[in-house]
Amino acid sequence: MRLYNVDHVGIAVFDLDAALSDYERLYGVFPLYRETVEAQGVEEAMIPVGGSFVQLLQPLSADSPVGRFLASRGEGLHHLAFAVDDIEVALSELAEQGARLVDTVPRSGGRGARIAFVHPSTLGGTLVELVELSHDH
Amino acid sequence: MRLYNVDHVGIAVFDLDAALSDYERLYGVFPLYRETVEAQGVEEAMIPVGGSFVQLLQPLSADSPVGRFLASRGEGLHHLAFAVDDIEVALSELAEQGARLVDTVPRSGGRGARIAFVHPSTLGGTLVELVELSHDH
Repeated sequence: MRLYNVDHVGIAVFDLDAALSDYERLYGVFPLYRETVEAQGVEEAMIPVGGSFVQLLQPLSADSPVGRFLASRGEGLHHLAFAVDDIEVALSELAEQGARLVDTVPRSGGRGARIAFVHPSTLGGTLVELVELSHDH
Repeated sequence: MRLYNVDHVGIAVFDLDAALSDYERLYGVFPLYRETVEAQGVEEAMIPVGGSFVQLLQPLSADSPVGRFLASRGEGLHHLAFAVDDIEVALSELAEQGARLVDTVPRSGGRGARIAFVHPSTLGGTLVELVELSHDH
């Protein structure tokens, strides 16, 4: 496995419009993508900053992973996403090394990407997302 | 102000050696810098991933910001750092916009950088660090 990039940093927010407005007002940055990702139970916006994105996540319902995160911890840093070239190879290598995988097979993420999460108990209390970007995007 | 990059994502850990070993074993990545930053009360390691760094932080004492974070929340994502060209201008603009600044004047960070933190209550529950990198580094 090779990590190619910090693809994005995911931040859970209660109000996506308000957070986007604040990012623009305070930091002068804007979203490049915004979409609803039903498979993740979120509406998300991707703000490019240099070679990575700040991803803002608003849950579609309280009974979703991001909804439960907000209820228990409030707004804040949610996960760290690395770009990989082959997500199946990455998941296989992580499993061999004893990583606790949230997803043993990839799911659909935003931007047409294939994604999978690694449980925070694996390393540094950090929910890690692997992202295999679509070549069409 | 212009945000040039996601300079790094800071992660608080109890044991820096163990975390570095796990990052190498699981993800095949290594630190480029490792140093003690007395002004921040941490020993830190910077792992390059693409154009950004994963920063691992081990507190020098329990009575430090990162030490208190670990005591209350455990290991995990601690802050998000953006590179700026002029940190005084950035702080001035943020103050004008009503941001709550942890540091109204820059402090010394790792890699010879000048840094300042913006309080998480400002936006998205996220502790934001501004980094003006040293031209000599």
